[in-house]
Amino acid sequence: MRMGYELENTIGLLERTPAALDALLRGLPEVWTERNEGGNTWSVSTVIAHLIHGEHENWMPRTRRILQLGETQLFEPFDREARVRYGKGKTLTQLLDAFAKARAKSLGELHGLKLTPQDFERRGRHPALGSVSLSELLATWAAHDLTHLHQISRIMAHQVREVVGPWARFLGVMQCAGHSEAA
Amino acid sequence: MRMGYELENTIGLLERTPAALDALLRGLPEVWTERNEGGNTWSVSTVIAHLIHGEHENWMPRTRRILQLGETQLFEPFDREARVRYGKGKTLTQLLDAFAKARAKSLGELHGLKLTPQDFERRGRHPALGSVSLSELLATWAAHDLTHLHQISRIMAHQVREVVGPWARFLGVMQCAGHSEAA
Repeated sequence: MRMGYELENTIGLLERTPAALDALLRGLPEVWTERNEGGNTWSVSTVIAHLIHGEHENWMPRTRRILQLGETQLFEPFDREARVRYGKGKTLTQLLDAFAKARAKSLGELHGLKLTPQDFERRGRHPALGSVSLSELLATWAAHDLTHLHQISRIMAHQVREVVGPWARFLGVMQCAGHSEAA
Repeated sequence: MRMGYELENTIGLLERTPAALDALLRGLPEVWTERNEGGNTWSVSTVIAHLIHGEHENWMPRTRRILQLGETQLFEPFDREARVRYGKGKTLTQLLDAFAKARAKSLGELHGLKLTPQDFERRGRHPALGSVSLSELLATWAAHDLTHLHQISRIMAHQVREVVGPWARFLGVMQCAGHSEAA
């Protein structure tokens, strides 16, 4: 079934993600949260730093840009590596706190915009994707939480790939190749 | 890095999963939780029913079987469809409560066993996988939480596949095919 865009569905998820990650990750042994999937892949902590970065530099800034400038100017490219600024020297606990705070601030700003159904059709210009609507941007904000929850579960599962022994083949998460294209 | 088996890592995750799912899902609009990925795939609520089923019929029963019977007798096969018994007629809120309660009971029983490092090497016989160790079973219990967290994020992302528009290709979770083998 094709779902029309509804802001309340987006907000419902966006407001829950920080608490969900907090409940999953705070105080968890570091073997789960500070290791990666090999090479220069991300640890769970790196993912949280990336989510903080998105709150500061991606979702609400692009929302405002669509409302203010429409398609007249390209979005700033979102530099996924810039998340290091937000993670450097911080413990996972500090990152979880910073994410919750940044998300609450974003949602307060979003609420303050008092968006109308007409606003959702307004468009901006993405440097790689071209013309995109505000509803697509807002839906992507929520889906981006989910893609990183998906990644976090995969990073964590990777840490026990050996110790589960023959069960690995029954565990879908262990067959999941990192499949994000660079954003 | 190969990780040796440590019970505290397993328990650290197992005790957090119910609260994480609760924070993510309780009160969320049903568009996220009651729809599936098409055909006879599972909704998020179905996944929670399956997790409850595992607490009652899989993890601790198999643990006890290894300790009591070793490899002399096959595990009961785990019927993934039997989860319907645990889900039928229940709201997601009731399922989340039941999962938290069942998990707490399991962990209480696990604690009561006072397992030693030697116990982790004890073995049982899985109907499809053959000889498996207790440490493999316990690590799989935690990884099984992760495989379903991974699935839940994918089911939810599926619901906004259309409304994210061109961003879908930047969202790894939307490239993830359901990749679990039947357990």
